[in-house]
Amino acid sequence: MQSPHTQLGVVQRRIERAPAEAVERLSRFGVATVHEAMGRLGLMKPYMRPVYAGASACGTAVTVLLQPGDNWMLHVAAELIQPGDIVIAACTADSTDGFFGDLLATSYRARGAAGLVIDGGVRDARDLTEMKFPVFSRAIHAKGCARATLGSVNVPVVCAGALVQPGDVVIADDDGVVVVPAGSAMAVAEAAEARTANEAAKRQRFAAGELGLDMYNMRETLARAGLRYVD
Amino acid sequence: MQSPHTQLGVVQRRIERAPAEAVERLSRFGVATVHEAMGRLGLMKPYMRPVYAGASACGTAVTVLLQPGDNWMLHVAAELIQPGDIVIAACTADSTDGFFGDLLATSYRARGAAGLVIDGGVRDARDLTEMKFPVFSRAIHAKGCARATLGSVNVPVVCAGALVQPGDVVIADDDGVVVVPAGSAMAVAEAAEARTANEAAKRQRFAAGELGLDMYNMRETLARAGLRYVD
Amino acid sequence: MQSPHTQLGVVQRRIERAPAEAVERLSRFGVATVHEAMGRLGLMKPYMRPVYAGASACGTAVTVLLQPGDNWMLHVAAELIQPGDIVIAACTADSTDGFFGDLLATSYRARGAAGLVIDGGVRDARDLTEMKFPVFSRAIHAKGCARATLGSVNVPVVCAGALVQPGDVVIADDDGVVVVPAGSAMAVAEAAEARTANEAAKRQRFAAGELGLDMYNMRETLARAGLRYVD
Amino acid sequence: MQSPHTQLGVVQRRIERAPAEAVERLSRFGVATVHEAMGRLGLMKPYMRPVYAGASACGTAVTVLLQPGDNWMLHVAAELIQPGDIVIAACTADSTDGFFGDLLATSYRARGAAGLVIDGGVRDARDLTEMKFPVFSRAIHAKGCARATLGSVNVPVVCAGALVQPGDVVIADDDGVVVVPAGSAMAVAEAAEARTANEAAKRQRFAAGELGLDMYNMRETLARAGLRYVD
Amino acid sequence: MQSPHTQLGVVQRRIERAPAEAVERLSRFGVATVHEAMGRLGLMKPYMRPVYAGASACGTAVTVLLQPGDNWMLHVAAELIQPGDIVIAACTADSTDGFFGDLLATSYRARGAAGLVIDGGVRDARDLTEMKFPVFSRAIHAKGCARATLGSVNVPVVCAGALVQPGDVVIADDDGVVVVPAGSAMAVAEAAEARTANEAAKRQRFAAGELGLDMYNMRETLARAGLRYVD
Amino acid sequence: MQSPHTQLGVVQRRIERAPAEAVERLSRFGVATVHEAMGRLGLMKPYMRPVYAGASACGTAVTVLLQPGDNWMLHVAAELIQPGDIVIAACTADSTDGFFGDLLATSYRARGAAGLVIDGGVRDARDLTEMKFPVFSRAIHAKGCARATLGSVNVPVVCAGALVQPGDVVIADDDGVVVVPAGSAMAVAEAAEARTANEAAKRQRFAAGELGLDMYNMRETLARAGLRYVD
Repeated sequence: MQSPHTQLGVVQRRIERAPAEAVERLSRFGVATVHEAMGRLGLMKPYMRPVYAGASACGTAVTVLLQPGDNWMLHVAAELIQPGDIVIAACTADSTDGFFGDLLATSYRARGAAGLVIDGGVRDARDLTEMKFPVFSRAIHAKGCARATLGSVNVPVVCAGALVQPGDVVIADDDGVVVVPAGSAMAVAEAAEARTANEAAKRQRFAAGELGLDMYNMRETLARAGLRYVD
Repeated sequence: MQSPHTQLGVVQRRIERAPAEAVERLSRFGVATVHEAMGRLGLMKPYMRPVYAGASACGTAVTVLLQPGDNWMLHVAAELIQPGDIVIAACTADSTDGFFGDLLATSYRARGAAGLVIDGGVRDARDLTEMKFPVFSRAIHAKGCARATLGSVNVPVVCAGALVQPGDVVIADDDGVVVVPAGSAMAVAEAAEARTANEAAKRQRFAAGELGLDMYNMRETLARAGLRYVD
Repeated sequence: MQSPHTQLGVVQRRIERAPAEAVERLSRFGVATVHEAMGRLGLMKPYMRPVYAGASACGTAVTVLLQPGDNWMLHVAAELIQPGDIVIAACTADSTDGFFGDLLATSYRARGAAGLVIDGGVRDARDLTEMKFPVFSRAIHAKGCARATLGSVNVPVVCAGALVQPGDVVIADDDGVVVVPAGSAMAVAEAAEARTANEAAKRQRFAAGELGLDMYNMRETLARAGLRYVD
Repeated sequence: MQSPHTQLGVVQRRIERAPAEAVERLSRFGVATVHEAMGRLGLMKPYMRPVYAGASACGTAVTVLLQPGDNWMLHVAAELIQPGDIVIAACTADSTDGFFGDLLATSYRARGAAGLVIDGGVRDARDLTEMKFPVFSRAIHAKGCARATLGSVNVPVVCAGALVQPGDVVIADDDGVVVVPAGSAMAVAEAAEARTANEAAKRQRFAAGELGLDMYNMRETLARAGLRYVD
Repeated sequence: MQSPHTQLGVVQRRIERAPAEAVERLSRFGVATVHEAMGRLGLMKPYMRPVYAGASACGTAVTVLLQPGDNWMLHVAAELIQPGDIVIAACTADSTDGFFGDLLATSYRARGAAGLVIDGGVRDARDLTEMKFPVFSRAIHAKGCARATLGSVNVPVVCAGALVQPGDVVIADDDGVVVVPAGSAMAVAEAAEARTANEAAKRQRFAAGELGLDMYNMRETLARAGLRYVD
Repeated sequence: MQSPHTQLGVVQRRIERAPAEAVERLSRFGVATVHEAMGRLGLMKPYMRPVYAGASACGTAVTVLLQPGDNWMLHVAAELIQPGDIVIAACTADSTDGFFGDLLATSYRARGAAGLVIDGGVRDARDLTEMKFPVFSRAIHAKGCARATLGSVNVPVVCAGALVQPGDVVIADDDGVVVVPAGSAMAVAEAAEARTANEAAKRQRFAAGELGLDMYNMRETLARAGLRYVD
């Protein structure tokens, strides 16, 4: 569903994109890491899944607000895609229609799009897989669309439970989709880097058999919380 | 799910509420009318239902971001409720836990709250019904909550698919829940009034047997779109 | 979803309705009885619920095939309603949009409609309740609709998992919705009457404490099937 | 779904019921209170809803394991009902079939049953409402059943996510369904009584405007957890 | 769910299959193309998914109406399979039971079946994958079935929301399942061929950076519909 | 959901594991075979799916009861894992949070765990796939967890609809997850072996074109049940 600040029938041509450096740095991390770096916020709902296993994408958001059964606005959005953008499509109602397929994917790729995240269905799944065009959707379905009702482009949208402003950084992989506001992209990239730095050490200690109970000093807190061990 | 602009562990004490006059004027309309007046936007998802038939509420939003299984922040929010506020509670994950029951309802009513909209579960349904305290939720469930993990109060939240900023006007009735941004509350109230003005006339014409086909001059448009009548 | 024999953009003006006598006789029975009389077939899925408790309707089907987010065809159908018809609306995709509300209900009632069964959402629930206009739907939601994309009227449709041909008899009550093909309406009415005749006797025996085990002579069959009693 | 310790085709005639006194004392409390008294455990999932608003029941469990589409075992169970029992029916697969209707309700009432909790569908909703026979189910649906495949009676079952042993106490109301093991029924009744004793006082303090923050001394814990107030 | 025109306990031995030439020509197209060629109709719901990625099938329908938890009729249907047939199994109630596994797949393949489409569950997913026997289902689940309750074979069925008559052509691939009535199979094949002819040209133009806005002359229609560009 | 016999805040250190020989023998069979050998019982619900295709695991259960949004108990459980154990995690409420990822998988593997079955979400899906650590879950989601609320370890739990006692044998593969009580593990292993012995012969007969109708002597029973063949 859409944000109430949004209007139908509007295309915002110019948007402020997050700094390219932030996007590049965020692109090195997975969704789980970025989500933690944001303070455990910013995730879309878990029904958003990659069309093919291993798909991943990171880019600046061009947002689309669709009407159910209608993919007109995806064509309007194509013109506004800049290389490195990722298209984020929300819908005014829950829908699994096949809004997007191989022709639009060809067009989006030609415009330089890094991928598509759509709170709806897509089709031509095999072509998308062969093209390696990363798509994250709520469904795969052949259902065709009309082009008759206006939505909007580059307005704030709520996509799969997350607010996305045009220009935000969106990262998507096997674990889901996370949204980083443009204004905090640099700070989140730094937090992600810091977080990752000591993960390798932890992994090694876990592999050697050390317990999280000891590594994170949990035993005392657990006892204070009242945990009882019985035999 | 929450907006990515949001932080956990933060309570915003002062918020800018929509003008009281706008709230009062909007309170005269149902959700369907306000949604149309906003240009068919601003609705929460249809799984949000009143706890008892006939419940309705209109007020300015005090927002809460909950963690699953934890209702701590609903107590923190109580202190910030001003008469006429409606509490809008989102959760960082889909949850049907019973975050709210008769004691909190008693507290909220004592603070002057106009109602609660919660993207989670509530309990003590019979008490809420008898108290006539309007609650809109995704579930009714006795499941109790802990008070151990921080969320936030008065941050922007995404509740049942709609973005809610603290101070926005929220209207809820049998048809669902709609959010009006504080900044456009006056304009939406006006649009709703204009819309309602000519509804009575239309209703009378429909009751007299006139067809929408004629009242809205659809016949020509339908023919142009290719509609074929066969016998 | 719709039957593959169906076309979009077609309105069938003349349809063959089930005999009025069959409709009248079927209207005396509940959905469960008619479903049994049909040999345990003909039911719509259980997500179809009355908008208000106690709603019930029986009539001959005027069918509508809607597009998601678009209620144009409900206006087209209004013209074809004859007194005693019940409008059965399917959609080319799963949708909870509010296709129908108080104005259309006023129009349908003025045309003599016995009710509406819609595999989608409706709004103005309170008005529908006050009007006592029987509506069975998959959702209640304020979401407004466009009028831009053609569907069809009086074509075969699949509504909530059941095939409905224009002119079929549809019975709806608290237990769901059942469809009786026009051609077998008379035979099903007879079967329902026969079935009901001996229900009163059974009810009395059950009330007196007799067991179904004995009334239906189940003990031997159960033993033969291998049921073991243990202490 | 059923417990793996369970067998098909078995009827356990004698079961150990929870003490009558415990049942009587537990019957004075709502589901939310008993669930808290059990340490926040024992609840069925929230999809279990009363057939009519205000239904409530408390009794000792006679358990039934059904096969999908087959209600044979509900007849077998009828013979084993003792006054004050509540029948708890699970199914080997998720099903919304109408396993139970007015005739079986008449039979169960004649045997003294306090109600039915069924992880499946029921029909004749209007009759059940008029009879005031309390039924909690996952669906209301007219779909009829065969009597051809064996299940079991009075074996341990998992009903809507909760383990139920024959003889356990089951309490059901508007807030859901909770299961109290026979062996701890007395202790849980005591805990519920203790819990309720000081609720009235709390309610009064809340009604007078006192905050949970103060009543439960949360302010310091919240601060220690890192909650920040901003203006 | 089944069509109301259907009876239980009936096996139709002789059916009229769509012309072999039509099947062969339709087998060259994907589901999305055929669905468009049918005028955007004929699709099953999107929950029908291939058991293994890349599965595809095209054949004439042998239809089966199952009862929940019972796979008897799948054995009855085996005898009626002719080389090139695809078995379409509906169920009288929503069910995820494992109706079909490696033994039946071996049998069906030996009879020449092109695949199975089942509105229920299947098991032995790994074997089906290794055999490359194309199966489209609503679930994968080990749950075993009884053989005790009659359904029907070669009656009209509603499978996943689509009406299927015995002898219809069914095409299934990664994008879903589409049903082509036998009587229009030839015409739909022609429409699909025409549609595909100019897709290659379009793809090339999209790949060269041309916009759908220009290729489909959308700009003027969008402007007339009221689309506003802002900076 | 949890069993009502369960307590929160308890860790049972010593558990009685099923005999190693039974585990080894059961590990040779798939889930469908074991489920049949148990008399068609013991399955978890079909929403439990492997994180990567082809994952399979068999081991003795270490059980965990989680609170939604909190993975503390998974760390507590790590200490109690013995080589060959499989961790079975239930949750007090439906949750798709990412309770488990690559670090815990590294720890669990180091302790000798055979896999994880969790009625919740997991993250780091790509790492789990590369590690070939078998995980069966209800969702994949990046959502991070707190460590603040006590659950339990090695108490009876209801996981995805199946009761699991610590020490039970759990088998998981592409077809789902089945639970074998420790006490009957040996008997079930034997039944599975007997069942498998004659499957190869059956498969060969099916492959040669023999019908199940004849192999299982169904024709007469079908006729007696009333099946009618028509032409």
